[in-house]
Amino acid sequence: MSSTSKHTILIVAGGRGTRMGGPQPKQFLELAGRPVLMHTLEAFDRWDASARLIVVLPEDQIDTWKRLCEAHAFGRIHRVVAGGETRFHSVQNGLGAVASNGLIAVHDGVRPLVAPSIIAACFAAAADGGAAVPVVPVVESVREVDADGGSRPVDRTRLCVVQTPQVFRADVLRAAYCLPYDPRFTDDASVVEASGVAVRLVPGNRENIKLTTPMDLLLAEQLMRRE
Amino acid sequence: MSSTSKHTILIVAGGRGTRMGGPQPKQFLELAGRPVLMHTLEAFDRWDASARLIVVLPEDQIDTWKRLCEAHAFGRIHRVVAGGETRFHSVQNGLGAVASNGLIAVHDGVRPLVAPSIIAACFAAAADGGAAVPVVPVVESVREVDADGGSRPVDRTRLCVVQTPQVFRADVLRAAYCLPYDPRFTDDASVVEASGVAVRLVPGNRENIKLTTPMDLLLAEQLMRRE
Repeated sequence: MSSTSKHTILIVAGGRGTRMGGPQPKQFLELAGRPVLMHTLEAFDRWDASARLIVVLPEDQIDTWKRLCEAHAFGRIHRVVAGGETRFHSVQNGLGAVASNGLIAVHDGVRPLVAPSIIAACFAAAADGGAAVPVVPVVESVREVDADGGSRPVDRTRLCVVQTPQVFRADVLRAAYCLPYDPRFTDDASVVEASGVAVRLVPGNRENIKLTTPMDLLLAEQLMRRE
Repeated sequence: MSSTSKHTILIVAGGRGTRMGGPQPKQFLELAGRPVLMHTLEAFDRWDASARLIVVLPEDQIDTWKRLCEAHAFGRIHRVVAGGETRFHSVQNGLGAVASNGLIAVHDGVRPLVAPSIIAACFAAAADGGAAVPVVPVVESVREVDADGGSRPVDRTRLCVVQTPQVFRADVLRAAYCLPYDPRFTDDASVVEASGVAVRLVPGNRENIKLTTPMDLLLAEQLMRRE
């Protein structure tokens, strides 16, 4: 690889946009005048202008994305890789495009508000321990529901919400993604843990929201404007 | 009681405002030109103009609230009761001001965006089963953290976030609040359950956010403007 950076970012955008209520995949929705996904790439570019960015998109969205990049004169160099059936398979495909060692971050394409300081903290913790993810406390009351409809309070002080970027040593992430797919894999940390590696928790920033509903998009617009 | 409504709403506002970063308690922060707490009272007024509204406030904030009501020419009739050491004690104090039977809702003073349809659904479920709370699904990945720093993924499909209004038959709520205080009581549902009554879960609306950070206030402004 000719890049001068050891940092690789897999930006996974598999959304079909159903929860947003429209036919437009949420990664392409306009935020402050440009598609969400462009903001996400720029967040990493701001942190490390030479980071290798790899965007994993559903195959049938790749042409649209290329047209959007032209229309918005988006110049940040990145590779585009076709995704798979699930997020797990999309990350596998993305990993197939990474030849280097060093550290690899996996990030949700629809988290454009990640702070450079959080990216840096996750990379530092992964450099040290092999695997790190950003987390924020749970601030609301939470209940656990049974199959029969019964429920009970959960001690929320023991819970945290997991965000991305989830950062790993390349060998750790590659070994984990050789595991057979399990529907209980909800994020990369759960895959890596299933491979026997402990994951470090790094304090995240609450503004790093995942844009899944129109309400989230509204909030993101405001947060960007405030910056 | 002379009121024509059987609905009593205890609006509990105990915030000291530390998480908002200012000296102003969050229930008094301006939202669309008026204190958050006024919007909350109005949300219930829109649902039932004859509902009995009881506001529970820290004793040293009661004068400020009365001045705010005058300054904003806020005309909705309500009672004001001094709160206690914790939310549990504040609800106990509020209950002391309710002589009637019927149904009692307990609501966070800093949830001004509750929808009338959700209030109605919670009252209907509580009329039927004695106790009902609104819940929304957990949409992010969640982990459980041990005292030693280890953590593991939690199946989020079994979790839900609990909001307010939490609605109860008056006899059920009164009996529950005779229990001795326990720090594990995080909301009224947990108190009522500890008294042996099962709580029904009612689908809530995600917009019914609890305003605890400046980010929440920003989002609430936008949601109100959209309405």
